Amino acid sequence: MTTTIISSATKEVRIGFDQRFVVIGERINPTGRKILAEEMKNGDYSRVEADALAQVAAGAHMLDVNAGIPLADEPRILAEAIQLVQSVTDVPLSIDSSIVEALESGLSVYQGKALVNSVTGEDEVLERVLPLVAKYGAAVVAISNDETGISEDPNERFKVAKKIVERAADYGISHEDVVVDPLVMPIGAINQAGVQVMELVRRLRTELKVNTTCGASNVSFGLPNRNGVNAAFLTMAMGAGMTSAITSPLHAEVMQAVRGGDVMMGHDPDCANWIRAYREPAPEGAGGRRGRAGRRRG
Amino acid sequence: MTTTIISSATKEVRIGFDQRFVVIGERINPTGRKILAEEMKNGDYSRVEADALAQVAAGAHMLDVNAGIPLADEPRILAEAIQLVQSVTDVPLSIDSSIVEALESGLSVYQGKALVNSVTGEDEVLERVLPLVAKYGAAVVAISNDETGISEDPNERFKVAKKIVERAADYGISHEDVVVDPLVMPIGAINQAGVQVMELVRRLRTELKVNTTCGASNVSFGLPNRNGVNAAFLTMAMGAGMTSAITSPLHAEVMQAVRGGDVMMGHDPDCANWIRAYREPAPEGAGGRRGRAGRRRG
Repeated sequence: MTTTIISSATKEVRIGFDQRFVVIGERINPTGRKILAEEMKNGDYSRVEADALAQVAAGAHMLDVNAGIPLADEPRILAEAIQLVQSVTDVPLSIDSSIVEALESGLSVYQGKALVNSVTGEDEVLERVLPLVAKYGAAVVAISNDETGISEDPNERFKVAKKIVERAADYGISHEDVVVDPLVMPIGAINQAGVQVMELVRRLRTELKVNTTCGASNVSFGLPNRNGVNAAFLTMAMGAGMTSAITSPLHAEVMQAVRGGDVMMGHDPDCANWIRAYREPAPEGAGGRRGRAGRRRG
Repeated sequence: MTTTIISSATKEVRIGFDQRFVVIGERINPTGRKILAEEMKNGDYSRVEADALAQVAAGAHMLDVNAGIPLADEPRILAEAIQLVQSVTDVPLSIDSSIVEALESGLSVYQGKALVNSVTGEDEVLERVLPLVAKYGAAVVAISNDETGISEDPNERFKVAKKIVERAADYGISHEDVVVDPLVMPIGAINQAGVQVMELVRRLRTELKVNTTCGASNVSFGLPNRNGVNAAFLTMAMGAGMTSAITSPLHAEVMQAVRGGDVMMGHDPDCANWIRAYREPAPEGAGGRRGRAGRRRG
């Protein structure tokens, strides 16, 4: 049973085959969010704070923090954002950057054992990121593409993942601390994208014995009712063995799919978590704390 | 690639590994529906007709017809209900009874190739139902319990399914015409019920090469937000290889889970079915047929 432990100063999250699915909140990311980007650049982290609190309240077990703003001092901003988020919540973080200096800056201020997001199978990236992961005793997201790009062939993507796991071992990083992202393609463009990912997740789990994650929202790109597609993807991926995802916990349908997936996998004993999330309000006069005002209509 | 063909006088439905998931509408069933039971007993099929039309409109590919009313003339009522339903819709039917005379009566009036629901692994039932299935050239739902009841051990349930498939072959019924119901237990009572079904579905598919179905709603018995549980179950079961279910198409969440599952399995080319179901209304003035009045709020 593979278990990846990520922690903050006071809290531990376990990603694992016999654990509840881990939702890593994706919202703290200035990509495509102009106002947030401008604010972060100017040292205003009020929206980062609000996003952090809202995602945790919605059920995120971890938060991804990204500070990728063109022409900005990403290492400084990422470190500041991480410190801010760690001061207002206790969930462990994923430190997200494509710039190695920003990853290092983030790791240097992080309290606990972080998830570094990410390393690819490109030799130059491996040689720069893996020593950092080892130095800080972190875990790392391994994205299954390399110098040749993202292969449409799942076998190629498996090979890249295998290469990263082996290279990590050379740096003393256990396969338990490598969480592989099999790369989810938009299913509106690639009809077999879902089947490919499920197959890849199964192989990654049985052959490489690694945990998996993904940017789940990508699967629904270009389609209507994206949350519905994302929900179906997440539930089916959980059935195939996926153990975490970077996604938005603010969509009720997505969280419902994850909670339902946990129930189906037998990872929600007595359905306690499901019942807590969805129980009906007590009928009037029954002594419950929620009366008519607490009821949803319809 | 196993394919079970079920038909009405004019329409064919294919249940199969490379086909869209088949939803068999469960509503025409007087069990627990007092008014419907009373009406059917008195030869009033207006509600049966309304239920048939509503389920087909909601996306059911087939309809289950059950006339199990205590102390009523079930063979006559079932035959009348089937004739009524076949006169108002063209979808193929599943003829549902635990009384062999009622199955025969239903089969005798049915136009097309029906799905007989069901046979169990009990010798006496096998010996009475299978000759009927063979005589009418029908397909049959095989429920994986026998004289000893429903085993909690999935291996036992697999064995019962295997026995039924083998016995059917003795009557000249191909494994393609046996659709196995692995039996879905309430997950609120049995934490491993989901995992067991997924494993069983995979084995039934790879080892016995049969299609599968189930009474999907049973899984959520006793839990709040049942449609959410049913949706998670259906999507995950589709990922494991389940090819049909007897459920209510009138719940939007259930149909969304099935459509989403089809997308993920690569069984909805170009996501055309998904887009048709969920596309946004055209913006005002864009010449679309749906204006503001057609929009859902929120």
